[in-house]
Amino acid sequence: MEIVLFVIDMVGTFAFAISGAAVGVRKKLDLFGVLVLSFLTATFGGILRDVLIGAIPPAALTNWIYLAVACLAGVFAFYWHSLVEKMRNPVLIFDAAGLSVFATAGANKALAYDAAPFSAVLLGMVTGIGGGVVRDMLIGRTPVVLQSELYAVAGITGACVVVVGHRFGFDGQWSILCGAILCFGIRFVAIRYGLQLPVAKYDDRF
Amino acid sequence: MEIVLFVIDMVGTFAFAISGAAVGVRKKLDLFGVLVLSFLTATFGGILRDVLIGAIPPAALTNWIYLAVACLAGVFAFYWHSLVEKMRNPVLIFDAAGLSVFATAGANKALAYDAAPFSAVLLGMVTGIGGGVVRDMLIGRTPVVLQSELYAVAGITGACVVVVGHRFGFDGQWSILCGAILCFGIRFVAIRYGLQLPVAKYDDRF
Amino acid sequence: MEIVLFVIDMVGTFAFAISGAAVGVRKKLDLFGVLVLSFLTATFGGILRDVLIGAIPPAALTNWIYLAVACLAGVFAFYWHSLVEKMRNPVLIFDAAGLSVFATAGANKALAYDAAPFSAVLLGMVTGIGGGVVRDMLIGRTPVVLQSELYAVAGITGACVVVVGHRFGFDGQWSILCGAILCFGIRFVAIRYGLQLPVAKYDDRF
Repeated sequence: MEIVLFVIDMVGTFAFAISGAAVGVRKKLDLFGVLVLSFLTATFGGILRDVLIGAIPPAALTNWIYLAVACLAGVFAFYWHSLVEKMRNPVLIFDAAGLSVFATAGANKALAYDAAPFSAVLLGMVTGIGGGVVRDMLIGRTPVVLQSELYAVAGITGACVVVVGHRFGFDGQWSILCGAILCFGIRFVAIRYGLQLPVAKYDDRF
Repeated sequence: MEIVLFVIDMVGTFAFAISGAAVGVRKKLDLFGVLVLSFLTATFGGILRDVLIGAIPPAALTNWIYLAVACLAGVFAFYWHSLVEKMRNPVLIFDAAGLSVFATAGANKALAYDAAPFSAVLLGMVTGIGGGVVRDMLIGRTPVVLQSELYAVAGITGACVVVVGHRFGFDGQWSILCGAILCFGIRFVAIRYGLQLPVAKYDDRF
Repeated sequence: MEIVLFVIDMVGTFAFAISGAAVGVRKKLDLFGVLVLSFLTATFGGILRDVLIGAIPPAALTNWIYLAVACLAGVFAFYWHSLVEKMRNPVLIFDAAGLSVFATAGANKALAYDAAPFSAVLLGMVTGIGGGVVRDMLIGRTPVVLQSELYAVAGITGACVVVVGHRFGFDGQWSILCGAILCFGIRFVAIRYGLQLPVAKYDDRF
């Protein structure tokens, strides 16, 4: 079970790092810039969560495996970017897997640090979307997570499952698995059918 | 007295949230994006202060009232945005009230966590302007707080009153009230008469 | 020895603050905006490091000397900006000195807070480049540090020297001095000869 979670965690890190690196290559950053974007996209959500719950120093800065995986993804996207561009759809799927495991595992870690249920849901969401938000802020575009198809809603749903499971005394790992599957499912359906939240009919005369 | 401060705190949260939501609607974010901008604009200054003084986890993540008020403001601005656009001036006034109470209460909380007087003034300012700065960074524009009429100066003045009052042993709540009124007054006069700090005569040939 | 490090620290703070203020003047910010950019460019890297290692509240918020030096630099750049524009090359040299001392002293402080060697290198880099990154994010441009000549690589090299020196039991101050000189040398050669890391040949048809 732990091995399954670890593998998914690494897959999520890799997928998030690929999405960061792809954006960096498109922005014509140098190799270092691409690696920084990979690393921050993959780990910033977790770093933010760790700072907010007081888990200092953050896991992503003490365990070298995150940097190694992110750099591997970054180098890959740097030298084979045409491949990455072609497989954009698979990347979206990987990214959904990453969101699922980050949001649920993030909520679980917050609960382990005695966060209230309400805080744990927020912190799970932060873990899931923080990396993508900082990636977009670094290259100066409005975060896609604030605009795209049920992205954060999926993350919140997954985090809620973990928090409810914790409340009723279920085992944390099974809650994570259920929450992650639900989150992934929502995100998959949203991508597949282009579902999204309403946008206000803003009148451009203002 | 406490009830007065609580009401002003909620009014400030609501006003800041409205300003975040209005920006999000104009940027055509979806409903979730608008709510995130509302919440972050209303609470990011306080979250930053809490991280910097070690008050972990931050109050805005543990007390659901902030999220509730911010979401209320966000939903309101989302569905009645034309109303919000029309009452831009009242929003500026609410916003000045929010700045006043956030900057002074922020300085007071920093003092309660044994910050030095100098730090408390800085942290009060951070509490007051942090939300607006992150709102503008998220949508990729230069923070208006760095450009507009005596905004941060008003916040610093209010925080100074609290710190000086603390130094001379006055009651914290009265210091907050005096500082907030002074801050609000400066900001009100600045809006009314378009006062602002000098801008360097930058020569565009460079 | 301590006095040497203190003087270099102040020179670095001043140089970073000048670079922040110059950008603010070009963006036509008001005086306060320029001072905020000066202060954040000079201190944000250190603040980030202090938050990540749990050194709360951060030194830059408790010791007024950083604010004083940053404001001095900001006022100078505000009123004599044409002079600053003309001496852009000297500013680059100062900036390299600042990077060198921040990256090495940052790694050293992280080690003093029991960070692992791997974390200390990352935190040294964060200390060195954090200010420039936040400066560029505030004005909405992609951080130059992600694009420019061997900037972060120089910082990482300096931090590595400190960490290796610590491992072999050398005195911290001498490690800082050696690391800073090496870092400065790399950066100087990179500026002089326009060295930089490879950029992916991105195909614009994508």
